Amino acid sequence: MQHGEKTHVEVHLKAAGVVILNAAGDILLVRELGTAGQMDKAGLWHIPSGTVEVGENPEDTAVREAYEETGLRVTLTRFLGAYLGRFPDGAFVLRHVWLAEPQPGQTLRPTFAHEVAEARHVARAEFDALYAAGQIRMYQTKLFYDDALREVART
Amino acid sequence: MQHGEKTHVEVHLKAAGVVILNAAGDILLVRELGTAGQMDKAGLWHIPSGTVEVGENPEDTAVREAYEETGLRVTLTRFLGAYLGRFPDGAFVLRHVWLAEPQPGQTLRPTFAHEVAEARHVARAEFDALYAAGQIRMYQTKLFYDDALREVART
Repeated sequence: MQHGEKTHVEVHLKAAGVVILNAAGDILLVRELGTAGQMDKAGLWHIPSGTVEVGENPEDTAVREAYEETGLRVTLTRFLGAYLGRFPDGAFVLRHVWLAEPQPGQTLRPTFAHEVAEARHVARAEFDALYAAGQIRMYQTKLFYDDALREVART
Repeated sequence: MQHGEKTHVEVHLKAAGVVILNAAGDILLVRELGTAGQMDKAGLWHIPSGTVEVGENPEDTAVREAYEETGLRVTLTRFLGAYLGRFPDGAFVLRHVWLAEPQPGQTLRPTFAHEVAEARHVARAEFDALYAAGQIRMYQTKLFYDDALREVART
């Protein structure tokens, strides 16, 4: 039996981002300033990421956002996952995440200084403390980090 | 405000597959025999794809399924999309699709002959006729093909 249109679920928002680990397994996070209409993000840490524009491939979004938020030109090394979320109004969001590595010889410095207050590597213990203190953007940020460490250990 | 666990939606089934286009833009499809418990698939055409095993990266699933269902060793060239679906019981399925290219010098021949009856390239006009006749596995198969043609035209 053919599955018709009813079995397809439209996603309202697509986002894409990167997990960048250093040799110690620390994750690169950015602390968001918050922008007009999105001030609930202010001060929280998240991976470099952002909205997939219309007609944009999520791979390109991930690379673009990494540059805008950290100043780093990165290469995507491996697909990590697509994470489904739901807003309070019921709308679905799908967050596409890749493992990425900075191209050599660069300096960490947010390009979009009006969006990002700070970018730095955070060790696992500090990450957990930040999460417990409500300073990490979302539960899924933790899933990205867990999955990245698992993927790196596996390969 | 930190988004907690409630904003994360667990996906019950993950699948991964590939869109392989030839130079004419025809899509490589396989016709499924159907297996015990899944005889509703029998005779329908779909892209080479299958279930992401526990601990398996969807990229690896896509490459593995391409080989099992077509006999071709492929290289993933570009992420195409993650497509959300819903089963009648409400469970979510997420289908990860890549554009892929066969490595040179190979013969098209399903490895898992107990699962796949036939594998061949289908031109767009035939695809549309098969879809209208209910012979394509699902509505999303059509989305994959549309998106692949758009992505190839764009890049």
